[in-house]
Amino acid sequence: MLSFQNLIKLNRNGDLPVFLQISNGMTLLIKSGILGKGVKLPGTRSLSESLNVHRKTVVAAYDELMSQGWIEVIPSKGTFVSNKLPIVDARKLTNDEHRRANREKAGFDFYPREELRRAKEFVADGLTIDEGIPDVRIAPVFEILRNLKSIVSRSYNKKYLSYGPVHGDTLLREVLAGYLQETRGMNITMKNILITRGSQMGMYLSAQMIIRPGDIAVVGQSNYITANLTLQDAGAELQYVPVDEEGINTNAIEAICERQKIKAVFVTSHHHHPTTVTLSAERRLHLVQLAEKYGFAILEDDYDYDFHYQNAPLLPLASADRSGNVIYMGAICKIVAPVYRVGYMVASEDLIEETAHLRRIIDRQGDAVLERAIAQMIQQGDFQRHSKKALKLYKERRDHFCGLLESELSEYVSFDRPEGGMAVWVGMDKALNWGRVAKECLKDGLRIPDWQLFDQLKGGHNHIRMGFASLNNEEQKEVVRILGKAMKTVKTEASLVMNLA
Amino acid sequence: MLSFQNLIKLNRNGDLPVFLQISNGMTLLIKSGILGKGVKLPGTRSLSESLNVHRKTVVAAYDELMSQGWIEVIPSKGTFVSNKLPIVDARKLTNDEHRRANREKAGFDFYPREELRRAKEFVADGLTIDEGIPDVRIAPVFEILRNLKSIVSRSYNKKYLSYGPVHGDTLLREVLAGYLQETRGMNITMKNILITRGSQMGMYLSAQMIIRPGDIAVVGQSNYITANLTLQDAGAELQYVPVDEEGINTNAIEAICERQKIKAVFVTSHHHHPTTVTLSAERRLHLVQLAEKYGFAILEDDYDYDFHYQNAPLLPLASADRSGNVIYMGAICKIVAPVYRVGYMVASEDLIEETAHLRRIIDRQGDAVLERAIAQMIQQGDFQRHSKKALKLYKERRDHFCGLLESELSEYVSFDRPEGGMAVWVGMDKALNWGRVAKECLKDGLRIPDWQLFDQLKGGHNHIRMGFASLNNEEQKEVVRILGKAMKTVKTEASLVMNLA
Repeated sequence: MLSFQNLIKLNRNGDLPVFLQISNGMTLLIKSGILGKGVKLPGTRSLSESLNVHRKTVVAAYDELMSQGWIEVIPSKGTFVSNKLPIVDARKLTNDEHRRANREKAGFDFYPREELRRAKEFVADGLTIDEGIPDVRIAPVFEILRNLKSIVSRSYNKKYLSYGPVHGDTLLREVLAGYLQETRGMNITMKNILITRGSQMGMYLSAQMIIRPGDIAVVGQSNYITANLTLQDAGAELQYVPVDEEGINTNAIEAICERQKIKAVFVTSHHHHPTTVTLSAERRLHLVQLAEKYGFAILEDDYDYDFHYQNAPLLPLASADRSGNVIYMGAICKIVAPVYRVGYMVASEDLIEETAHLRRIIDRQGDAVLERAIAQMIQQGDFQRHSKKALKLYKERRDHFCGLLESELSEYVSFDRPEGGMAVWVGMDKALNWGRVAKECLKDGLRIPDWQLFDQLKGGHNHIRMGFASLNNEEQKEVVRILGKAMKTVKTEASLVMNLA
Repeated sequence: MLSFQNLIKLNRNGDLPVFLQISNGMTLLIKSGILGKGVKLPGTRSLSESLNVHRKTVVAAYDELMSQGWIEVIPSKGTFVSNKLPIVDARKLTNDEHRRANREKAGFDFYPREELRRAKEFVADGLTIDEGIPDVRIAPVFEILRNLKSIVSRSYNKKYLSYGPVHGDTLLREVLAGYLQETRGMNITMKNILITRGSQMGMYLSAQMIIRPGDIAVVGQSNYITANLTLQDAGAELQYVPVDEEGINTNAIEAICERQKIKAVFVTSHHHHPTTVTLSAERRLHLVQLAEKYGFAILEDDYDYDFHYQNAPLLPLASADRSGNVIYMGAICKIVAPVYRVGYMVASEDLIEETAHLRRIIDRQGDAVLERAIAQMIQQGDFQRHSKKALKLYKERRDHFCGLLESELSEYVSFDRPEGGMAVWVGMDKALNWGRVAKECLKDGLRIPDWQLFDQLKGGHNHIRMGFASLNNEEQKEVVRILGKAMKTVKTEASLVMNLA
């Protein structure tokens, strides 16, 4: 007889009743072929002794196995593993090594997305220069929690806990339509709005709706890498145009349109990612005219609209769109905190309707209670107040950070003070190497962005984005101190190598 | 001169300062071509009079427009719309009708998903028989809120408000690995788990990873329609196999495999959607063996595992998977409340890694604070207590509802008492028509599921799913009363037509 006390491990303090632990253990032995079909099982008395449990527990376990169809009783003969079960080859299980490997590799072919591996994960951890994200320490979390609670506390609001509209919370769509109309001059109604989980989902949905393999999409020669990857994942062939101090070059786009059909242009009008420049007024108008003339979509990711310091932000391209050519994407999480993943996609009604069908099979809907909480916060002005507070703070932090870069690091770096946003585009002496600097910084506990994410054209710039918004003045001093030390070390090494050569 | 007081509408109680309302209004007039390039603008005094605002406000607006590049001052001549701007054709704007239409239709071609329109939206509203969803009135919302608050209240937890791991909260992955190991016999670690937003996202991600246009996927002859649509959207050609009282017919799957290469089989082991039957023990083993032999993926959506009333639930196919052939999907939102969209996808490590790259471009990550709250609730046992409470309640509701169907509607309907889940599969006399019954019910304020969602094979069954879990005993009595009245009316009409014929 098999040694059941070794094969079935019981946890008397576990969540599962002991009789179910026994029946589950038996099931796994049957499934793995250790107990083959037709094998006679021990009597309840003998099994209860070897497992050191009450006999009733084993009886309950056998009842369970019988009702599930794993075992059968043959009168006056005993209890057997069901003869109806298929034969299982037991060899594999004996080799633990092999069994573990089975959970490492899929037993079928799938289609890996090798391109997508390039977008490395950024996770905030310790002292970090990020690529430009909000300071979550000022996020209005208690206002959000208070709104969440007030919504679910009212019994007539219980419906928000169930399935809701795939387009997003109706109140939020209404409130946003009014807000975008009033503050950004967009001629829209709630029918033009799909609530998403941040502007990235708007980007994904748009790419899936307008791109099929081989279609052409135009992006800046340096561009937000995740946008490129999202378009490529949908099958787009990318064409690159130059970016200068007025943003993406629209004459270069016109030249492409004269040669061939393009499906989309991606643009971050406020502010170009990664270089932080604002798309100029004349290029905005020019791009909208081109879209109308050549029938392509403008994917306008306006993630930074609320953080413009020089003057008021320029109205989005979407406000000049008279022919349904602009898909406008914004993110509320950029203002509140990244974890509250609420954003919006604004487009013509027909596209919004069709996109909603796709959204339904992706994740059914957003978090309706959170969406309503944010709608209430916009209605009550809490959202706008927080946005103004953050704008003021980030402007001060920009000035402080740029001041430090000038006073402490001018020997190594060059940059233009950004007109808005949460990051500076910092260039470094070409003799130096951001990868080496990053390694030196890490010795002092500072992480900086991976330069390879920005060096999209080989032999191009030697820049990285440095986020200042999430660092207070003390932290800024500390990161600049560490950066300076690292750059000095790397420069000394570089000149040693020069001298040796 | 243009009548600016008619063209620029000011809202003195709005969110936006008046000077910005003026500059935005001017920008829109320029963008729309009403103010063409080179046009001379009124002086600040004259404009302030016609708009009835202080002159300083107009000066601020002009400063704004200048700094944004829309207008320019030519000394001793005046202020003009910038000559650098492209010419805008103003004709279109004059036609309000046309302008509105522009937000209705996209100005470019896109790829509508006509198939996806079939999955109609279910939104809880008034007295409703749903397809089988939890009762959100018993959802542990205050426990969730308490956990959310305790997480964000601790300053060292602020990191959860920022970007986090795309795979999902690390603690939840660990806790779930242990939970699934202990309660469902799955031999996994956290590396086998990707946290999703409900089992639908697991389904979408899996389909995108393993299906390319033309690949074959096998489903039951009646099946969860959204699963079919998700596979088809990824490009799958569906092949159908019969479903009987033991679930999906695995011999029919074997016959297909002998003829051609298949990529995936979709199965809802607990319990088949829509018919509610449990996949039997021998078919479970058979299917796993077939997957291993023929190298296909089993997409196991085990959404109903926690709600099985007859005996303990049968362990998932994933517990018998020795070769990485099963992708297992579960949903925590089914137990808590649909709005808390947290679920999991369990698969081999290599597939989980690649799927995470795709997840990143869809919506970056889940709600990390909610995920951690749920991890804590599993650790503390709150989750399991709620699950047990719901199981007991839903079992009572199943018995009550089936009792009512028997005593009040046996003249019209037939059904098998389901072994688990939240719905009964209710058949009706073929002479009657669910569409007609639904219309009659609506007159009395009751909505019932759309029968067309279940009648996937033409001329097939005449069944719908009736959810009982979300209705208390009083509500069940009321819906059965209305159903009975509606069925009587429809039957009387049908026999009148018979008699006339």
